[in-house]
Amino acid sequence: MTVVKDNNITTGKIYQQVIERERRGDYLGKTVQVIPHITDAIQEWVQRVAHIPVTPDHMPPKVCIVELGGTIGDIEGMPFVEAFRQFQFRVKRENFCCAHVSLIPMPKSTGEPKTKPTQSSVRELRGLGLSPDLILCRSEKPIHHNIKEKISNFCHVTPEQVICIHDLTSVYHVPLLMEAQGVVQYLNERLQLNIAMPRPGSGII
Amino acid sequence: MTVVKDNNITTGKIYQQVIERERRGDYLGKTVQVIPHITDAIQEWVQRVAHIPVTPDHMPPKVCIVELGGTIGDIEGMPFVEAFRQFQFRVKRENFCCAHVSLIPMPKSTGEPKTKPTQSSVRELRGLGLSPDLILCRSEKPIHHNIKEKISNFCHVTPEQVICIHDLTSVYHVPLLMEAQGVVQYLNERLQLNIAMPRPGSGII
Amino acid sequence: MTVVKDNNITTGKIYQQVIERERRGDYLGKTVQVIPHITDAIQEWVQRVAHIPVTPDHMPPKVCIVELGGTIGDIEGMPFVEAFRQFQFRVKRENFCCAHVSLIPMPKSTGEPKTKPTQSSVRELRGLGLSPDLILCRSEKPIHHNIKEKISNFCHVTPEQVICIHDLTSVYHVPLLMEAQGVVQYLNERLQLNIAMPRPGSGII
Amino acid sequence: MTVVKDNNITTGKIYQQVIERERRGDYLGKTVQVIPHITDAIQEWVQRVAHIPVTPDHMPPKVCIVELGGTIGDIEGMPFVEAFRQFQFRVKRENFCCAHVSLIPMPKSTGEPKTKPTQSSVRELRGLGLSPDLILCRSEKPIHHNIKEKISNFCHVTPEQVICIHDLTSVYHVPLLMEAQGVVQYLNERLQLNIAMPRPGSGII
Repeated sequence: MTVVKDNNITTGKIYQQVIERERRGDYLGKTVQVIPHITDAIQEWVQRVAHIPVTPDHMPPKVCIVELGGTIGDIEGMPFVEAFRQFQFRVKRENFCCAHVSLIPMPKSTGEPKTKPTQSSVRELRGLGLSPDLILCRSEKPIHHNIKEKISNFCHVTPEQVICIHDLTSVYHVPLLMEAQGVVQYLNERLQLNIAMPRPGSGII
Repeated sequence: MTVVKDNNITTGKIYQQVIERERRGDYLGKTVQVIPHITDAIQEWVQRVAHIPVTPDHMPPKVCIVELGGTIGDIEGMPFVEAFRQFQFRVKRENFCCAHVSLIPMPKSTGEPKTKPTQSSVRELRGLGLSPDLILCRSEKPIHHNIKEKISNFCHVTPEQVICIHDLTSVYHVPLLMEAQGVVQYLNERLQLNIAMPRPGSGII
Repeated sequence: MTVVKDNNITTGKIYQQVIERERRGDYLGKTVQVIPHITDAIQEWVQRVAHIPVTPDHMPPKVCIVELGGTIGDIEGMPFVEAFRQFQFRVKRENFCCAHVSLIPMPKSTGEPKTKPTQSSVRELRGLGLSPDLILCRSEKPIHHNIKEKISNFCHVTPEQVICIHDLTSVYHVPLLMEAQGVVQYLNERLQLNIAMPRPGSGII
Repeated sequence: MTVVKDNNITTGKIYQQVIERERRGDYLGKTVQVIPHITDAIQEWVQRVAHIPVTPDHMPPKVCIVELGGTIGDIEGMPFVEAFRQFQFRVKRENFCCAHVSLIPMPKSTGEPKTKPTQSSVRELRGLGLSPDLILCRSEKPIHHNIKEKISNFCHVTPEQVICIHDLTSVYHVPLLMEAQGVVQYLNERLQLNIAMPRPGSGII
């Protein structure tokens, strides 16, 4: 897979583009605003880049994974969160899936996994208009099933939408752990990918 | 329609019931907690009362309208909001519909309708785990269609889910105004009521 | 009083300045970020403009009033709120005073003043790190003293810090109404202005 | 030190007391509400218990430490947070000090301390009307000074108000670590305790 410079959007690049457009008079002399100028520019960028082939056969990709870095609630990420909030309505439900990655700390003193930071960030995310389709819980050690149910219960998703990923010896084991928890099947249905599914029961765990 | 004392739940009644249960030993000596004791008691109360006939034919009602008073974010209402958050999962989507009533102030000095309080309360409500199915906007004067679209856009619902109700000369005109904006049809589908619909175009406005 | 173009900061102007600095290499090739690049630029702008004489005697002003437009919680205003949050620590308490203007709607149907939107925006503002020193309540009609106490109680300020300004026949009456509620005296002490105070009791109301 | 049953307040005990008062007619037939009935009962309880001697000399204590369990934002704790919010104004600043305990997770995969959960809970706490005087950061390993400054910067307190407590071999070392970071001196001034201070520089670290 080949990715290019444009596969990386930053606040700086987006603002530079918007400022240049403003100078060219694209906004008819209107004051540059985060909404709609910055948020529109982000959406256009994503939509454009999502169609650039990254494989040797030069076919447009079926799926584009966008990592929105930072933490929900950060000012830095706000225009991006708002852009994706609008984007989900623009491209319709079957073309947008929101996966929220959250840390489940396990303080050594008690060893007990803490779900409050996750509850808090999901509340923030939902408040901003994005409802997570998948909640990916990162933890040091494997998380027990009752914690999965607790997250499901307090984060308003089904247990199937909670994916637990503990520290593994190799990063190559991560996709296997995700597949074993039904992520491929979930995304296949959710995004109507129509890909033939691997035989059930072939995963690990 | 006949309603009885039990059709009115208050914080006091619920807590009294829970304290009595605790004294009877129903909770096996465990400390009374808002979650799950109070929230469970609220859900049971609602489910019980929803089945009590209120019409002369003594048939169980098809729909139970619960008014959750106060303002979203108030401590007073928190256990009730949490109870209904859980309730929506317990009774499934086709048996629960959340209508959020919000004031659209129109300060006399500018006359311009203000949608920020509504955006703010919807954000709070969504953060607490309830996504409004209908947003009922109360205003002094009729609200223009572009305000409806603004609310739709910033509150993450379709324009059909935004119902505008301005001050009317008689409270009996309110249902007509709601019907004219498609509320009956919406609820019929959303709650799978299977009632024969009035001919389209028979409403006012 | 003479104000110049620089007395008006916009998102666009700030971003343009930051992008230009970035191109000149001021940030040593680092990615432009809202924090610290944008927020620093805002603070520098304010500090610079605050010293530009606006009176015929060409003396530097004693006070600079900055109106931060928009609504608390808007993405548009976030970098500005964050800039002023930092600014209050940079310039010390006696050089910074935060006045929060909020609408108290009085729906015609009940006539009752609603303080919830104010409570909600103060909560948001405090959460973002700015505690209002003055809460300026805009309303159609005069607000009763018990509402002032309610706002004081639920917004964590003394009643003296709540200033009520109803619609007046002329905008020139506004300063008189503010003075009558002790604003001049409050600011004199709060900002250590050392100005001789007008005789008490000379205001209206 | 001897503590008694009343030194432990629970939601259940408070509600039982309030319900009993209501039955006795103390509230003149008014509906029991969280505010003011529950919040008043909490404040009275704390004020009463704070004066009960716990030492052999039967002198009233100089300081009462109240641990408000749970997590900020939990429904369970809301009436208590609100009660203490009111309490701080009732007893005046020199009689109330708010210490916020927060976990700084250090995910093993990166080892980097995460301050976002702390920023998030301080934002929530401030929004609810309590500004932390001390932020006590619990972590597995010692926290570097630049993290202390980051917390200071983003949680709106001075670095002296940030106290870092890592896992220690014995719980008896905790007070020494706190003293070494100036907690005794801070509380002495903040609460006007007028106790003779230990010689500076006698702490550990």
